[in-house]
Amino acid sequence: MKLELVLLAVIFWQRGHTDVAQPKQSLGHVTVVIVGATGDLARKYLWQGFFQLYADRVGKGHTFSFYGGGLSPDEKATPLLFGLLKELPCPSELSAERCALVKDQFLHLAQYRQLNTSEDYEKLSQHIRQQMEQEGMVEAGRLFYLSVPAFTYADIAEKINNTCRPSPDAWLRVVLEKPFGHDMGSAQYLAKQLSVKLKEEEMYRIDHYLGKQVVSKVLSFRKENKKLLDPIWNNHHIERIEIVLKETLDAKGRIQFYDQYGVIRDVLQNHLTEVMTLMLMNLPANLSNSAEILQNKLQLLASLQNIDKSNAVIGQYQAYNGEVQEELNKTKDYYSVTPTFAGVVIHVSNTKYDGIPIFMMSGKALDERVSYARVIFKSDTFCVQDPTDIQCKAKQIVFYLGHGNLQYPAILVSKNLFKPDLASHDWKEVTENKDVNVLGLPLSDYYIQTPVALREPYCELISQVLIGRKDSFISTEGLLASWDFWTPLLHSLAHVFPRLYPGGVANSNLLNFQLRGRQVSFSQEAVVNIIKPGAEENFQVMQGKYRSSEMVSAWAQELVERLASDLLMAAEEAIRQDGQFHLALSGGSSPVALLRTLALDLYTFPWSDTHIWQVDERCIPHTESGSNFRSIHDLLVHHIRIPYFNLHPMPVQLNQRSCVEEDGGPKLYQQEIKQFINASSFHYILLGVGHDGHTASLFQDNKFDSDDERLVTLTESPIKPHQRMSLTFTAINKACRVGVLVMGKGKHELVSQLSRIKGESPKYPITKVQPKNGTLTWYIDYDALLG
Amino acid sequence: MKLELVLLAVIFWQRGHTDVAQPKQSLGHVTVVIVGATGDLARKYLWQGFFQLYADRVGKGHTFSFYGGGLSPDEKATPLLFGLLKELPCPSELSAERCALVKDQFLHLAQYRQLNTSEDYEKLSQHIRQQMEQEGMVEAGRLFYLSVPAFTYADIAEKINNTCRPSPDAWLRVVLEKPFGHDMGSAQYLAKQLSVKLKEEEMYRIDHYLGKQVVSKVLSFRKENKKLLDPIWNNHHIERIEIVLKETLDAKGRIQFYDQYGVIRDVLQNHLTEVMTLMLMNLPANLSNSAEILQNKLQLLASLQNIDKSNAVIGQYQAYNGEVQEELNKTKDYYSVTPTFAGVVIHVSNTKYDGIPIFMMSGKALDERVSYARVIFKSDTFCVQDPTDIQCKAKQIVFYLGHGNLQYPAILVSKNLFKPDLASHDWKEVTENKDVNVLGLPLSDYYIQTPVALREPYCELISQVLIGRKDSFISTEGLLASWDFWTPLLHSLAHVFPRLYPGGVANSNLLNFQLRGRQVSFSQEAVVNIIKPGAEENFQVMQGKYRSSEMVSAWAQELVERLASDLLMAAEEAIRQDGQFHLALSGGSSPVALLRTLALDLYTFPWSDTHIWQVDERCIPHTESGSNFRSIHDLLVHHIRIPYFNLHPMPVQLNQRSCVEEDGGPKLYQQEIKQFINASSFHYILLGVGHDGHTASLFQDNKFDSDDERLVTLTESPIKPHQRMSLTFTAINKACRVGVLVMGKGKHELVSQLSRIKGESPKYPITKVQPKNGTLTWYIDYDALLG
Repeated sequence: MKLELVLLAVIFWQRGHTDVAQPKQSLGHVTVVIVGATGDLARKYLWQGFFQLYADRVGKGHTFSFYGGGLSPDEKATPLLFGLLKELPCPSELSAERCALVKDQFLHLAQYRQLNTSEDYEKLSQHIRQQMEQEGMVEAGRLFYLSVPAFTYADIAEKINNTCRPSPDAWLRVVLEKPFGHDMGSAQYLAKQLSVKLKEEEMYRIDHYLGKQVVSKVLSFRKENKKLLDPIWNNHHIERIEIVLKETLDAKGRIQFYDQYGVIRDVLQNHLTEVMTLMLMNLPANLSNSAEILQNKLQLLASLQNIDKSNAVIGQYQAYNGEVQEELNKTKDYYSVTPTFAGVVIHVSNTKYDGIPIFMMSGKALDERVSYARVIFKSDTFCVQDPTDIQCKAKQIVFYLGHGNLQYPAILVSKNLFKPDLASHDWKEVTENKDVNVLGLPLSDYYIQTPVALREPYCELISQVLIGRKDSFISTEGLLASWDFWTPLLHSLAHVFPRLYPGGVANSNLLNFQLRGRQVSFSQEAVVNIIKPGAEENFQVMQGKYRSSEMVSAWAQELVERLASDLLMAAEEAIRQDGQFHLALSGGSSPVALLRTLALDLYTFPWSDTHIWQVDERCIPHTESGSNFRSIHDLLVHHIRIPYFNLHPMPVQLNQRSCVEEDGGPKLYQQEIKQFINASSFHYILLGVGHDGHTASLFQDNKFDSDDERLVTLTESPIKPHQRMSLTFTAINKACRVGVLVMGKGKHELVSQLSRIKGESPKYPITKVQPKNGTLTWYIDYDALLG
Repeated sequence: MKLELVLLAVIFWQRGHTDVAQPKQSLGHVTVVIVGATGDLARKYLWQGFFQLYADRVGKGHTFSFYGGGLSPDEKATPLLFGLLKELPCPSELSAERCALVKDQFLHLAQYRQLNTSEDYEKLSQHIRQQMEQEGMVEAGRLFYLSVPAFTYADIAEKINNTCRPSPDAWLRVVLEKPFGHDMGSAQYLAKQLSVKLKEEEMYRIDHYLGKQVVSKVLSFRKENKKLLDPIWNNHHIERIEIVLKETLDAKGRIQFYDQYGVIRDVLQNHLTEVMTLMLMNLPANLSNSAEILQNKLQLLASLQNIDKSNAVIGQYQAYNGEVQEELNKTKDYYSVTPTFAGVVIHVSNTKYDGIPIFMMSGKALDERVSYARVIFKSDTFCVQDPTDIQCKAKQIVFYLGHGNLQYPAILVSKNLFKPDLASHDWKEVTENKDVNVLGLPLSDYYIQTPVALREPYCELISQVLIGRKDSFISTEGLLASWDFWTPLLHSLAHVFPRLYPGGVANSNLLNFQLRGRQVSFSQEAVVNIIKPGAEENFQVMQGKYRSSEMVSAWAQELVERLASDLLMAAEEAIRQDGQFHLALSGGSSPVALLRTLALDLYTFPWSDTHIWQVDERCIPHTESGSNFRSIHDLLVHHIRIPYFNLHPMPVQLNQRSCVEEDGGPKLYQQEIKQFINASSFHYILLGVGHDGHTASLFQDNKFDSDDERLVTLTESPIKPHQRMSLTFTAINKACRVGVLVMGKGKHELVSQLSRIKGESPKYPITKVQPKNGTLTWYIDYDALLG
């Protein structure tokens, strides 16, 4: 019986050989090398993908040979590999007979080779060349799939580059698996190492999400339905966006890898970011123009608002730490802070999407396995009678990647939105009415589109490598742009303890999180904490005296929030009394966090009655990046609704030149002050102080005459650009309120020195700030105060 | 038995008389006169209110007498009135015995008097004086309640003023019932008529909604929960507001009145507007400061965006027209266009509320009777596991006025928001868990507050008249402000046919309506229309030639939309090519509608890459209301997110003076143009044309030299302010695209004349607009084109 089968196979193979394996017109020979041929990924997906590729392509122009490479010696790994290959399931579109035939050919074309030293690679190369010569074949290209730890990439790339490149006219394509670095620095380092050995077009960085059929459909769905989507694909209509990957699995057995990365690096930085990018990037004019797609992706990534720990919540399933102790051989008092759950809110800083919260969420050991991205639209209908009418139900578009209630990948458009176009033959409409609820709506409330044939992401991507299409892969620029966005969050989370969760349905509502302004926090108060909060969190806002004036001190973020709220109170008081609030802002780095807080978190600030003035300005055009007004504009003004007429930039450019004495800039600004402000007394002047004790742009070497009644003057700074325009001490000391904001360890020395000086000191211009009838308050963060 | 009871009553009365009816310290005598004493309102509410007032107040300082007045002779009306008074139900807080006693007193103090002629009023006044003299009483005041048709107000007020005023130290209060006019004009007329007879403080205009306990609680609820509400009571958190009065009743039997008014005048202009005002006005510092409340109300009303028929949908129940024909004796081909249903969307144009749709809805013959106002908050929570968790449910605050599922008046706050304070003794918390669903949530999901004792609005308001508290009444200023807002809508709806609806639950979804931008329309296509749409709607946008250039013509609104969309296309093209779009806008009245459309409806306009320039400017400060830049700012710039640096106002103010030759304003602007714009060629210049044929600020008498290379110049206008700054024809004719917008019947003459002139004519500067390499398009509305 067994013998018969073998005989049968041989006969089929011979027939098959002439039948299908002889291409009519040869497109040349392709050599596929899977480095890490018997590893987990190769076993699960890669061989299957190449088998499928072979089955699809055989007889259609290319000839193939397949090498499984690894560190083990040939005699040990060869049987292992063939055991694995024999078990490969048949692609569903093949008949059993045909599959047996194709698999037999595939097994013939595959072999294992130890790939360890440079010589191994050189020998492989020689072998490939000899084989081709023997069979009279022309080389089309070599495809290396590196299914090995990332730290070996550079080394393997070097070996390929040195000794295993194909013939000059053939292509080389090297497929890489994540992780591509750990943060911006490491990703840059790795990218640089690779770039000296491989050209950009030779590298194919895989993100298997981009091989998912629904994900690779996003752009064409947007294009096919452009007319209907254009009017609603913006912040006037979109209420929120959710991009979600929930897993029930835990990290057990993979801790060695996982504990170095955590969920943000493992899922958010790559998979979910790619999906977000496809959903929100500008539609390219041409969907097959990879360069345009990349350009638009980069543009979107560049327009994301910076995030840090205030924009994220993180968790860790309770059993995780035990697994870490076990798998990493750690003692019982070792605690890992690697998050296995993360919820992040992202905002895009452009006119079209500004204000839409984009929630990303992923976690292990959750209650269900599901992955989707959805756009939820604002309710725009008033239902007079029946609020459960379809018109009044949620309006959403769901890119459903799989699992969950629906089980299959699909694009769902709620019926109260529109009926989407179905332009492609590879997709079909589903009209089944399975009685399930998908993301808040019964399935019958959706128009459903699904691929005609389901394909594994790896199959999809492998076939794209073969045809050399790059848009489903991560370019170096795209990779670095994504790390550039995620790294600040990762660094700011470095010492944050994740909330512990039990795992599975027992998590209940413990991980729900909610927006506060543009930040997020868990909806429920913390229940468990691994370690008691450190000293940091025990400090509260502190009030005291500094240089005989009021002082407020706190950690940086709290200090800034307190100052913002003091400003709000001052504004409300001023507007009650005078109908207007005149605020003068300094340049420099200290106010950055304050301006951001004012712009994004203080929704109730009465901007329409507030006038913004400048304390000082550099003598360069306002549009240049060093300009103080530019930074006030970009950080604050651009985000709020303030009348144009309420902005008072210093006139440092007159007659197309900077701060020329006879143009009378200071006099003009002084006239403007006198015209708008009662007794030229600003309601609030916000100052900083430099390391050298200067404030505004009033420096140690400038001459100050206390009788001088000028409110504005030109000064010289010791630092470039030297020319400045500044309010004078006369103007500053007329103010109702003056706040001095001092932040950072770098200012500690100065803060100590100043505290020892009584009254004025010519060495420290800041000591001349002594409001006549107003109050002076120092806002000093703990870093500056305590060092 | 009957006799015994009477005896008993007399005994009680005598005891009662000394017990309670003799005030310890008299506050003087109050005379109440209900004019229209046996009418519908008086029967239903007023006498009951005054009886309640008497029961509350008797023995507490005032003495009272009550007069029912009317046109009928005494002998006819007296028994009628007493029949009515005898049937008054007892206030719930009185025991049956005490009630019988009090009612008997009340009957003794009440009498009917014919009030027709001036003499009648004079006699009444004499009678009151005599009565008081006889009983040795001092007069506190006279309260007239005019429960008569509004057209008689002026006449009655005159009679009261002439012959029936109280003694000099006593007050006069005249209570008026709506309608207070029919639109702005009639309301002003009525107000003026009354103002010569009564002082503002003597008039009490009733809106019985203001007497509803929940409505009169709105401000104090907001104040009591200020800390919790302040952060969320704004457009960052509020998704929408709904103010609703649904009735099941129809207008049958009241058509005489109703058909003149319709639902907008009957309900929206007064009741629902008052509720909205209380919900959104700035909280007064002092809740009992009527002047401050009025001020804040007026401020809110002034900040509402104008509405017209594009912001409303109207309907009429099918039986209505038959009722009209019958009750008004009309023939069978008579059609009333009075709406019995209206849905309106309102937007507030201030930083705090801008963008929140405020839906007002009211109708007769609907499926249920209910009235409420609710604030629905945006969902800010991400529910990781269970989207039906309370944290993820709708968040709302409901001011529930009554009926519907809940049946009693209450303030409901969903539990996922906060637990409201309960500061007042008159209100209690309800903890019942009746199994009903109220506006989308089960009752158990709300914190519920309700008044301890339910009071009829009329009782409430009558007692406020007595103590002279005015904030629950409509002031003249408030009334006119409301009419000012509603009148343009009413006028624009004058010839619009309401959608017919069957009435009751059969209405189904026919009346649902939805937002499109800031406008609304019915969600379903029209099914029935009384009369075919008029000629107007058959016109489409028309394209043709005018003066050898392209011409687009349409009715005004469509023309403006078309121009806006052409501008958008031009912008997108310019940005694709040059990265920027340089647009020059004219002043004057034509662009107003365009700027509004650009600001509010074209969400996708790429403002961040658009630069806005001026075609011309008046030599006055930009902050003045006649300034073109000011109007571009207020209509457009203030509503969009455009970088400060992209705005290029003409420098008409230099060195604190206007357009002085030696300040070189035109030269500065020209330099700016050259610096920013490639070859000084604007992408788009939008022009208007004056009746005299001028365009930009280039007038017939100005000298133009075609060789002049200046791009900007100072000119003289025949109209004040004479001095202008303007782009020259040289600049205009360099543009890539020039659009000339001509609208209104007033321009028809000019449009005809220009069409007859070939080429340039010195008489009409507009004829010099001849772009060299660009295109010229005329946008002329049908009014201007066809006259």
